[in-house]
Amino acid sequence: MIKKQALYEGKAKRIYATDDENIVWVEYKDSATAFNGVKKAEITGKGRLNNEITSLLFFLLTAKGIANHFIKKVSDHEQLVKRVKIIPLEVIVRNYAAGSFSKRFGVDEGKRLKRPIVEFCLKNDELGDPPITDDQIEVLEIASTDVIETLKTSALKINDILTEFFKECRLKLVDFKLEFGVDADGNILLADEISPDTCRLWDIDTNEKLDKDLFRQDLGNLIDAYETILQRLGGKQHV
Amino acid sequence: MIKKQALYEGKAKRIYATDDENIVWVEYKDSATAFNGVKKAEITGKGRLNNEITSLLFFLLTAKGIANHFIKKVSDHEQLVKRVKIIPLEVIVRNYAAGSFSKRFGVDEGKRLKRPIVEFCLKNDELGDPPITDDQIEVLEIASTDVIETLKTSALKINDILTEFFKECRLKLVDFKLEFGVDADGNILLADEISPDTCRLWDIDTNEKLDKDLFRQDLGNLIDAYETILQRLGGKQHV
Repeated sequence: MIKKQALYEGKAKRIYATDDENIVWVEYKDSATAFNGVKKAEITGKGRLNNEITSLLFFLLTAKGIANHFIKKVSDHEQLVKRVKIIPLEVIVRNYAAGSFSKRFGVDEGKRLKRPIVEFCLKNDELGDPPITDDQIEVLEIASTDVIETLKTSALKINDILTEFFKECRLKLVDFKLEFGVDADGNILLADEISPDTCRLWDIDTNEKLDKDLFRQDLGNLIDAYETILQRLGGKQHV
Repeated sequence: MIKKQALYEGKAKRIYATDDENIVWVEYKDSATAFNGVKKAEITGKGRLNNEITSLLFFLLTAKGIANHFIKKVSDHEQLVKRVKIIPLEVIVRNYAAGSFSKRFGVDEGKRLKRPIVEFCLKNDELGDPPITDDQIEVLEIASTDVIETLKTSALKINDILTEFFKECRLKLVDFKLEFGVDADGNILLADEISPDTCRLWDIDTNEKLDKDLFRQDLGNLIDAYETILQRLGGKQHV
């Protein structure tokens, strides 16, 4: 596989073409951003950690039968994935109140929800990724009712798998964000990354935060926390 | 019926007890507020117009079989209604893009939606009445799934009735906000008001705004517009 021209640069990753038109080369950057890019920093090692953690979690999800874009890790900060057209929705699953949910509805952070819920935000930096309902998604023709249902069902299944796995690793999966894409054959695949940048992960006993909230809220060393996550998940042996 | 002590004062209405514990006396005030109370004014005649318009529209909805709290008008700015416990949700129906929908999703004001949609906001001034999804309503135990479905079905039926009636009056019902309450017997009743304070109403030919956006956006005389609405709806003869 040959890494060719850059196709796209996002806040946390660079995407390159390869000699296979259905495969892209993903490079995880050391950039940390929050609040829609308002807060920024370069944090050495973050790209490697998110690549390792994402690779490990996608490997797990593949084993559990979740259709996804992941092919393989090609270096400590790079991976190959199937080329997909991203559906412009952030798919958020919440098990406990935190972040925007706590703030918006005045609910104490850490309160367990009586069941997991799925929320959507429209992926649009200019509009600030606004929350969007199923009906709004449908009338704005962002996705059909069938696709919305597929995303919700898949997100809840992924939540079951990840919650159980993280629990074995003494981590509480508070909430997380997924993105999905459509491949050349029209299949809906889980895409993007799953890492402490996109999940809230707390120590199961102490509720210590081990995710990007450390950066958002200036609470401590991001790299130490992400290293802890990677070690608890089983390091590199799975991939 | 005797007007007794004041029970509650909102931004646009005062509620009084009566000698019947299941009936309250509503006084429409001349206050105009917008942006969660940040913009305020006293506008003589507004209370009377909203009472007249609301009475007329609830009379119509009663005739069409919509369960609601309205009993009768008792003066030009007062009405009697059944006492209900308000469900703390704003139920918004949209036929065309406008207001927060246009702003949040970057859609031109006035674009017709391919079908009417229902949205909810949590009624909570302190939190700024945030948008809320069905799942969020359910896990926060604000209303059950059954109640949510009842509110949606009722809101869409009310939309059909009002859209048709306004059309006969050469008005376009762009969007509107409803509130529902539960009476002593547990029935869900349409409550609150339906007026140019709670509906976006545009002239069907010219798209001239004839509602509270005139106040929000300093576009012109509110009383003239509300008088126009009342006259087009048929004045006072219905109630």
